[in-house]
Amino acid sequence: MPFSASPMEPGGIIGILGGGQLGRMIAMAAARLGLRSHVYCPDPDSPAFDVCAEKTVAAYEDEAALRRFASSVGVVTYEFENVPARTAEVLAQVRPVRPDAAALAASQDRLVEKEFVASLGIATAPFLAVDTAGSLARAVAQLGRPSILKTRRFGYDGKGQTVVKEGTDLAVAFRSLGSVPCILEGVVPFEREVSVVAARALDGAFSAYPVCENRHEHGILQRSAAPAAVAPATAAQAVAIARTIADALGYVGVLAVEMFVTRENGAEALRVNEIAPRVHNSGHWTSDATACSQFEQHVRAICGWPLGATALLGAGVEMENLVGAAASGWRRLLGCEGVALHLYGKAEERPGRKMGHWTRIVPASCDKPADDERNPDATG
Amino acid sequence: MPFSASPMEPGGIIGILGGGQLGRMIAMAAARLGLRSHVYCPDPDSPAFDVCAEKTVAAYEDEAALRRFASSVGVVTYEFENVPARTAEVLAQVRPVRPDAAALAASQDRLVEKEFVASLGIATAPFLAVDTAGSLARAVAQLGRPSILKTRRFGYDGKGQTVVKEGTDLAVAFRSLGSVPCILEGVVPFEREVSVVAARALDGAFSAYPVCENRHEHGILQRSAAPAAVAPATAAQAVAIARTIADALGYVGVLAVEMFVTRENGAEALRVNEIAPRVHNSGHWTSDATACSQFEQHVRAICGWPLGATALLGAGVEMENLVGAAASGWRRLLGCEGVALHLYGKAEERPGRKMGHWTRIVPASCDKPADDERNPDATG
Repeated sequence: MPFSASPMEPGGIIGILGGGQLGRMIAMAAARLGLRSHVYCPDPDSPAFDVCAEKTVAAYEDEAALRRFASSVGVVTYEFENVPARTAEVLAQVRPVRPDAAALAASQDRLVEKEFVASLGIATAPFLAVDTAGSLARAVAQLGRPSILKTRRFGYDGKGQTVVKEGTDLAVAFRSLGSVPCILEGVVPFEREVSVVAARALDGAFSAYPVCENRHEHGILQRSAAPAAVAPATAAQAVAIARTIADALGYVGVLAVEMFVTRENGAEALRVNEIAPRVHNSGHWTSDATACSQFEQHVRAICGWPLGATALLGAGVEMENLVGAAASGWRRLLGCEGVALHLYGKAEERPGRKMGHWTRIVPASCDKPADDERNPDATG
Repeated sequence: MPFSASPMEPGGIIGILGGGQLGRMIAMAAARLGLRSHVYCPDPDSPAFDVCAEKTVAAYEDEAALRRFASSVGVVTYEFENVPARTAEVLAQVRPVRPDAAALAASQDRLVEKEFVASLGIATAPFLAVDTAGSLARAVAQLGRPSILKTRRFGYDGKGQTVVKEGTDLAVAFRSLGSVPCILEGVVPFEREVSVVAARALDGAFSAYPVCENRHEHGILQRSAAPAAVAPATAAQAVAIARTIADALGYVGVLAVEMFVTRENGAEALRVNEIAPRVHNSGHWTSDATACSQFEQHVRAICGWPLGATALLGAGVEMENLVGAAASGWRRLLGCEGVALHLYGKAEERPGRKMGHWTRIVPASCDKPADDERNPDATG
């Protein structure tokens, strides 16, 4: 770590690769701490460009632009795990990239990711590598149907995957994903999906937010709530798993670990589903419900600063994504008591596109409020 | 109100006159709601420029620049009350300016302000107009010593005022303020200083944050805490006073009303000290301790949107300004449990300059925490 001896200070500039809502929220958290942001993104309409001091519109393969960008900042981070290895390498020649290449390598490829997690003694879904239609047939014979065929790379929000059911033509399924290297995962019968959003500081300090529970629809996160309805021992184990992963990677920054809660021999058990080496959608509620949001926590970590407080300010919190047309309900949501609305400033509303989210804190002094006519879930 | 029929929508642009920390925090709140900000300020190093989509560096007297600026936005607001009348007039010819000229007129001139408040039947400190050294002598004879001589215009953070004590040479005192029109105010023996930060929506709806208590040092706000330690009836009266003022002005946006709490005939009484037609330093804690900050509330109001929730998320909250060199303690503050740090990105640290602030919520489940070694007030 040749650069770790030069910590960032307020007034400095952080570099953010990627200009979507995650980059936007990182930039806003950095600004709150007196830092400026330089956002690098090929898309000239990037939401993060509206809240940053400097921007670069260039391809992730433009090495001259990458070098100029890195030279202008004190530290580089990113909002998405599919940063090309060469991009990260070029940037890292100029400035520290946090999290580093090891984190990217461990999370960009589903097979590498699962093998890495398994190597730490942490349970995952059963999985097998699939490189041809023939190897898919052998894998399905072993893991059974239904099982899930996923591309090893570039999958997100349910993209790059297909379910292998009874009657699925395996050759067609393999071709439908582009005949690229894949992984077949056995289906885990889970009780709930949870995630741990946590941070590891430059000095190795670790801090996790309360475990939250997630609900996906059509492969896209729809709703998160914290704390998750799991046994305290399960929550502690989930945090311990995230810490084991972060420590093994020598990780610096915020990461999210998605897990399935299963019932094995009558007790709750955990299987890791996915690692995201970045701030995560299932941690958006931290902006409204903790003293230090995941975005600020990430900024603190990459700057070499101490980590902030992760305790819930209320008894609980719920977060719901506004996907596609759901964002058109913004005015009604503005009128819902205690609802904090976040919109990402995206010009075009498309089906499946994350346009914003809302959160609501359950006050510490009472239980979850009863649904009433002001409930954000109500339609109309 | 020729423009009130065209409400703003997410994706729209708000115009902010003034690029200091208040404009910066308004811009960040607007971004959270999917709005973009265009900041207008003569100073090219304005803190708000780091978080806005568009900026104009031009003088407040540059009418062509003002017209271009107003044409590019849906609604204009400002972060300081000393907007020249002609500037507001030029802008209002193009787009709605909220709060409007009436709010500026009522707060730019201390004499007009006091006469306006008094005309509503609301108590103030005793006051007299002073235009010459001779009229100062007559006013001092009436209000006694000590009393406070203030310029009618352009005063803030303790600037533009001097105390008339025993032995003070009145001609020297008047000249020391520039021999400009002044007001002499009698000293009010107060128990505490409080303020009400409140908002009035385009449709006349009104909402106030809990009354907070303020402590000034050298004329600069040093610390605020909410809720203020006053009787419930006093708090209710303070809010009623703010509402009376907002209604009388047909106000749209967030305003702050500073008041003295006195003891009269054994009971608490209130006297209005000052009106700020804008978001206010004594409301900074709302960013961390309510679902809708004063900055978001202001944006909602000027956009014609419904007002948000103003309830405290905890049992209480404290806010302290980081003035001048105090900001150099940022790293220690980052390590204080539950402290939310805000830095304004100002390049140059000057004595008396507000560089940032911190807040801390007192959790609902317990009383104010005991001071310990992690207390932000501790030096070192």
